[in-house]
Amino acid sequence: MSEIILTTFDWVPEMPRGYVRDLRVRWALEEAGLTYRVESTPFRDRKSGHFEHQPFGQVPWLTDGDLSIFESGAILLHLGELSDKLMPADRRGRSDAKEWLFAALASVEAASQPWSFFMFSGAADETPMRKFFDSFLEARLKHLESVLEGSEWLVKTFTIADILMADVLRLVDRFDGLKGYPACRAYVKRATARPAFLKAYSDQIAHFAAADPA
Amino acid sequence: MSEIILTTFDWVPEMPRGYVRDLRVRWALEEAGLTYRVESTPFRDRKSGHFEHQPFGQVPWLTDGDLSIFESGAILLHLGELSDKLMPADRRGRSDAKEWLFAALASVEAASQPWSFFMFSGAADETPMRKFFDSFLEARLKHLESVLEGSEWLVKTFTIADILMADVLRLVDRFDGLKGYPACRAYVKRATARPAFLKAYSDQIAHFAAADPA
Repeated sequence: MSEIILTTFDWVPEMPRGYVRDLRVRWALEEAGLTYRVESTPFRDRKSGHFEHQPFGQVPWLTDGDLSIFESGAILLHLGELSDKLMPADRRGRSDAKEWLFAALASVEAASQPWSFFMFSGAADETPMRKFFDSFLEARLKHLESVLEGSEWLVKTFTIADILMADVLRLVDRFDGLKGYPACRAYVKRATARPAFLKAYSDQIAHFAAADPA
Repeated sequence: MSEIILTTFDWVPEMPRGYVRDLRVRWALEEAGLTYRVESTPFRDRKSGHFEHQPFGQVPWLTDGDLSIFESGAILLHLGELSDKLMPADRRGRSDAKEWLFAALASVEAASQPWSFFMFSGAADETPMRKFFDSFLEARLKHLESVLEGSEWLVKTFTIADILMADVLRLVDRFDGLKGYPACRAYVKRATARPAFLKAYSDQIAHFAAADPA
């Protein structure tokens, strides 16, 4: 088996720590029990070598033998294909895990990310567009709440889709956006209590802290 | 081979016609030359049967034998696995097509969709957040421009990733958001000149027009 290398920034400011997207990949690698190594790329001075692996200058990317993969969703899909701890074995279960992986990004994060930008800005904003983005997120959470009310995980077992969805909802929860959605909130709590999440989280925090000036 | 059924709304207002996401799926089905049938679900009165297939009450979804798949990205991935006209045959080419499929959604559409909401609203808006969303999209287009400057398609051949990326950029172009990005604009023009796109587009227009009151 080829060596798996996860690349993330060498350092980031305090605010995004614990939320940089390498966390999703660390979490999946820990769930699967795969051996991996973490490498760093400069946050402040992004070189051409960085853009060769990640054309938008973001992180993470994963190398696995001759493959170099960017986009946390694509990396999770790749890891899901490698480990039966991350996707069910049957055709239908695998299809369901993949559709929910996309749904976490294109249905939920597509609404939660713009909303979170308003929250991060911290500015009082009563514009109609601000209200529009609030209601866009609410519409998605309302339907997700119905899905999660009767289910422990999105598919019949814990999958890559839960890693992505729980990570997306975790940021909403940070700004108290789940208070009307108890099933979503309980789902985040359940997912982030998993040992693999706790390890991934503390490893990310330690990774960035190690680069702080003494 | 099982029958492939694409479900979309029975009708939508004029504004989104030509941009409803069943277009991505029609386009891929036409490129692959797969046989399929289109069914309708009510736009105005969304029943529980709709939510069983698409938990967010959106369209499209695809049924293929015992599988029912929602999320245009997940459907494109499924179709890409079915046809060598939609993904290269080699491991590395397939991996690249998949990462770009995710990038079209999570790196580009994640920035273009909120921007397009501001454009659709049509309201004068000089708030800092409006400027933030403009620059968020610009940052992504700038890097994508570099990628497309030297390439006909995102991967070595035309793939599902191009269907998704070109469809995302098409909406940006509608609001003249590609004027500083000639390679992106030429890419959209090249992709939408393909016979499979033209067929998909005219079929969608005809589908919704057929439901207009006489």
